Amino acid sequence: MKVAIIFGSISDKEVMAKAARCLEEFGVFYEAYAISAHRLPEVLGEKLKEFEHNGVEVIIAGAGLAAHLPGVVASKTTIPVVGVPLKGALEGVDALYSIVQMPKDIPVATVGINNARNGAFLALQILGVKYPEIKEKVAKYRKEMVAKLTEEINQTL
Amino acid sequence: MKVAIIFGSISDKEVMAKAARCLEEFGVFYEAYAISAHRLPEVLGEKLKEFEHNGVEVIIAGAGLAAHLPGVVASKTTIPVVGVPLKGALEGVDALYSIVQMPKDIPVATVGINNARNGAFLALQILGVKYPEIKEKVAKYRKEMVAKLTEEINQTL
Amino acid sequence: MKVAIIFGSISDKEVMAKAARCLEEFGVFYEAYAISAHRLPEVLGEKLKEFEHNGVEVIIAGAGLAAHLPGVVASKTTIPVVGVPLKGALEGVDALYSIVQMPKDIPVATVGINNARNGAFLALQILGVKYPEIKEKVAKYRKEMVAKLTEEINQTL
Amino acid sequence: MKVAIIFGSISDKEVMAKAARCLEEFGVFYEAYAISAHRLPEVLGEKLKEFEHNGVEVIIAGAGLAAHLPGVVASKTTIPVVGVPLKGALEGVDALYSIVQMPKDIPVATVGINNARNGAFLALQILGVKYPEIKEKVAKYRKEMVAKLTEEINQTL
Amino acid sequence: MKVAIIFGSISDKEVMAKAARCLEEFGVFYEAYAISAHRLPEVLGEKLKEFEHNGVEVIIAGAGLAAHLPGVVASKTTIPVVGVPLKGALEGVDALYSIVQMPKDIPVATVGINNARNGAFLALQILGVKYPEIKEKVAKYRKEMVAKLTEEINQTL
Amino acid sequence: MKVAIIFGSISDKEVMAKAARCLEEFGVFYEAYAISAHRLPEVLGEKLKEFEHNGVEVIIAGAGLAAHLPGVVASKTTIPVVGVPLKGALEGVDALYSIVQMPKDIPVATVGINNARNGAFLALQILGVKYPEIKEKVAKYRKEMVAKLTEEINQTL
Amino acid sequence: MKVAIIFGSISDKEVMAKAARCLEEFGVFYEAYAISAHRLPEVLGEKLKEFEHNGVEVIIAGAGLAAHLPGVVASKTTIPVVGVPLKGALEGVDALYSIVQMPKDIPVATVGINNARNGAFLALQILGVKYPEIKEKVAKYRKEMVAKLTEEINQTL
Amino acid sequence: MKVAIIFGSISDKEVMAKAARCLEEFGVFYEAYAISAHRLPEVLGEKLKEFEHNGVEVIIAGAGLAAHLPGVVASKTTIPVVGVPLKGALEGVDALYSIVQMPKDIPVATVGINNARNGAFLALQILGVKYPEIKEKVAKYRKEMVAKLTEEINQTL
Repeated sequence: MKVAIIFGSISDKEVMAKAARCLEEFGVFYEAYAISAHRLPEVLGEKLKEFEHNGVEVIIAGAGLAAHLPGVVASKTTIPVVGVPLKGALEGVDALYSIVQMPKDIPVATVGINNARNGAFLALQILGVKYPEIKEKVAKYRKEMVAKLTEEINQTL
Repeated sequence: MKVAIIFGSISDKEVMAKAARCLEEFGVFYEAYAISAHRLPEVLGEKLKEFEHNGVEVIIAGAGLAAHLPGVVASKTTIPVVGVPLKGALEGVDALYSIVQMPKDIPVATVGINNARNGAFLALQILGVKYPEIKEKVAKYRKEMVAKLTEEINQTL
Repeated sequence: MKVAIIFGSISDKEVMAKAARCLEEFGVFYEAYAISAHRLPEVLGEKLKEFEHNGVEVIIAGAGLAAHLPGVVASKTTIPVVGVPLKGALEGVDALYSIVQMPKDIPVATVGINNARNGAFLALQILGVKYPEIKEKVAKYRKEMVAKLTEEINQTL
Repeated sequence: MKVAIIFGSISDKEVMAKAARCLEEFGVFYEAYAISAHRLPEVLGEKLKEFEHNGVEVIIAGAGLAAHLPGVVASKTTIPVVGVPLKGALEGVDALYSIVQMPKDIPVATVGINNARNGAFLALQILGVKYPEIKEKVAKYRKEMVAKLTEEINQTL
Repeated sequence: MKVAIIFGSISDKEVMAKAARCLEEFGVFYEAYAISAHRLPEVLGEKLKEFEHNGVEVIIAGAGLAAHLPGVVASKTTIPVVGVPLKGALEGVDALYSIVQMPKDIPVATVGINNARNGAFLALQILGVKYPEIKEKVAKYRKEMVAKLTEEINQTL
Repeated sequence: MKVAIIFGSISDKEVMAKAARCLEEFGVFYEAYAISAHRLPEVLGEKLKEFEHNGVEVIIAGAGLAAHLPGVVASKTTIPVVGVPLKGALEGVDALYSIVQMPKDIPVATVGINNARNGAFLALQILGVKYPEIKEKVAKYRKEMVAKLTEEINQTL
Repeated sequence: MKVAIIFGSISDKEVMAKAARCLEEFGVFYEAYAISAHRLPEVLGEKLKEFEHNGVEVIIAGAGLAAHLPGVVASKTTIPVVGVPLKGALEGVDALYSIVQMPKDIPVATVGINNARNGAFLALQILGVKYPEIKEKVAKYRKEMVAKLTEEINQTL
Repeated sequence: MKVAIIFGSISDKEVMAKAARCLEEFGVFYEAYAISAHRLPEVLGEKLKEFEHNGVEVIIAGAGLAAHLPGVVASKTTIPVVGVPLKGALEGVDALYSIVQMPKDIPVATVGINNARNGAFLALQILGVKYPEIKEKVAKYRKEMVAKLTEEINQTL
């Protein structure tokens, strides 16, 4: 396993599943956990130690409202943490601010609101720094996307 | 000691000192700690156990930006936590959302942006539920405030 | 009775009922009143005196729009007031600002938008300062929640 | 006296003085009071009865933060209430929402943030409905303003 | 006729009808016109002269988006103008800002977003300054409202 | 003259002068007028007729707060209107919304907050549709800008 | 062809079709392309050269979220670019800011959120600077609109 | 060189220098370039090809206003792009939205407003996935920070 996906509540599963689908599409293993930063702080601590020990290389963390999960994860590990703000209220702005505005030296790599797919894609790009085969797959995917979309540029309105 | 004041960064001292002044005014003991939720998560955990053990009855927690401190504290104790959003960016709206929008069963008693004085005053009111002498002091203070302000209502513009 | 629940309009009943359910779950008595700060200011004043007289120890006040109810209540009593911003317009931001941004020495313990459950849970924590049996129930509930959620952390996406 | 000016705190005097200057300019008497809705609710109630009794015809109320004063005044009288949101935090948006988003049948005639002059000018227009001489003065002032500004329209940049 | 209701687009009729219902309830005559400030500026100018000539005493103007209608009306008459921000986009915040933030000496008496009823109620209060019978009706209505709501304050949640 | 610059208040001159400087830089004549949409609606109407008659081809209109000027101009002419939101309050968001959110068939070509220079540059591009010499000057300027900035890309931090 | 319509994603077709309908109504030819600024940057570059070569005179570009398309187009051509912010999240505010807040000398003529019709209407007004027949059609349309709406101003609420 | 720092304007140097200082502190080479996405799109394209060719492993891109630079960079390379929203207007919210709300499969790893230091720290963590010596340095730095801050937790207010 190279990537861990964590989210704060079982109700976040539907959105976060898009991250899982993306990783599978590129053949990257992942494990997924519902661990609220607020409800299971100790379980989270232990799980993060397990991640360090098992060589997890990127963590994708999704949360809504006062979305502390990504930041709390980032504070307890030096593995890069990708944060996905989830829309629970206020159009997701509360979650965005709670994730992106981290203090000095504890960054969270934040992606767009509810954009779990992009969370996974960013994880792939980060893994691509180390693994040439992932970098190539991502580059190939981009080229195919370009080819496919290029065919469709002429539109009738 | 009945109240603990925690804040995320030494740069928050000036604002949080207003909470200390208020508690002193009412003769309530407190201890103050600069413990970042993100930088010292383990120290924070131990300090909270110490608070539980020493009979701390209210915790006032101030933080700015992605202000996780009050929520993280609230997740690790059942002592009531009063949250003070501090203005670091975005007029303090990021801190407000990060503190007030807590998930089910982990509330933070949030007061106004940079309003550490009100954080302490709320702590006094909470202590007043248990300690009649604090309730009386608060009530007396309110009456004196009313008397003093009543004398000044006529204004020349 | 230890807790009073007040709300501005009968249309707020559905959301505020979550506060009632939470209190019942923990065996805490409450009374509930629909008293608009704007429409029944005098009735409100009398009811608050009644609360003081009857030993109400926490007041939970919910309101939407220009949500003055929690602040008006806080201005007329020294009983701790928990404010629940209700979503009537503007995603509830108008109510949040109208409740949380209180002036010096008149705090409202504000919880998340539409989060009446957390309003009640905070009331329980405040009562727990005085009543060890409530503190224990809250701590026990937290532990059971942790145990239950810990069993469910492994998720398939 | 035809107009009463109320504001929540002595610190609001500088902004609210612009309302006073405007009324004087048009020869309308006023009285001014610093009466916080939250700190002096009972004094406010009595003063409003006095206003009703003395034939006050418009009330201008300015307040900042969780600016309840104009709404609380509006709830206790049927005299038209002009609300001036004052900028204390959040660029004055908190005060604006707290004043303008009033519930059914308790309107506040809200003007722009910190625009106490416009609060007074609106009071003049309201008085003009009843008093032809005020209506004429306002119309004359407008015409003179038009004449003066018309002379200055050619600008060199 | 004492009150004129204007709105920018026929699509605003449903919301603005609440203003009409309120005026009828209090026996106040009104006329209603769909005159966009942007599409019919000249028709608007003529209609406003007609209003002045016919003794219209309050104008209620509703508009959405870049809601210029109330301000344009206020700029062309000294009759008090009540502005109703209508929700067309951005939760109505665009309309609110476009109506309330008027320049010096051209105020619009702004009420809450989509709250046309309050626009009419404010008009009644303004008319009440001049007409004792309207002032009495409003006061009587308030008292009946208080009586009715007082009966319903005890709620079961 | 091909371009007219209008602004609501003499206090807007400093910002709007950037538009004038830009037009001069490209040798395009302009005239500038301080004509408030709210204070001089009739003068504005006459001036716009004059513009139509004199062959003005683009109008740049700047305003702050409830910034109606660009929209009111757009409603009275079919000459393209470039709107510049000026920062008077609320970081200029009130002006932006008041200018950009125009109704069907009355667009204003809105540029960035306080960005009068871009208002003029857009005017140049619009004139370039008709006048090849302006189009060439703009293209040449862009090329020179590219050349100049290209020389400076290597930076020491 | 005088106008090109570009948009970032096939999912934007429905909204952007309103621009097409408007151009057709006025007999102006257009071509439409789905070319994401982010996914097809090179295809976009080539297409823009083609536009320059074929004499396209106005480009209408619509995009949502971090809506870079209009700005990227504006950076690569001196043809006037009309930007239409599309509502994908955050009520379209993200798209509005991403389009309107352009740097010095690269303006985008921004219209209202989702208001593709106004994007086309602005394009017509820009073309009208050069083509008297389009200017006349636009003026005629406006007059007919005025006539039609003038007939409907009397409304029953 | 492993990291490239790009920013849109020479005026961004002061803030972006914090990223440079952070990288130097950890002994990571970088090159810095001022390349506006809007003014030098072609230079940017070539520079990015150069980066790919030279083995740049992370790109840190800072920009303000309609901050397209990070997104445009992300669209042209599969190297991970860290985006730093810079505060030019609107408290930096415009830049934040323009950077974080990227479309499917083109993520930008966004950090806090003006927080260039965190942009660099995130780059270090990403490099740490591949280079154990960087991972160790980051972990060591964190431990030292913890030790240092732990000594300072007792504060006198």
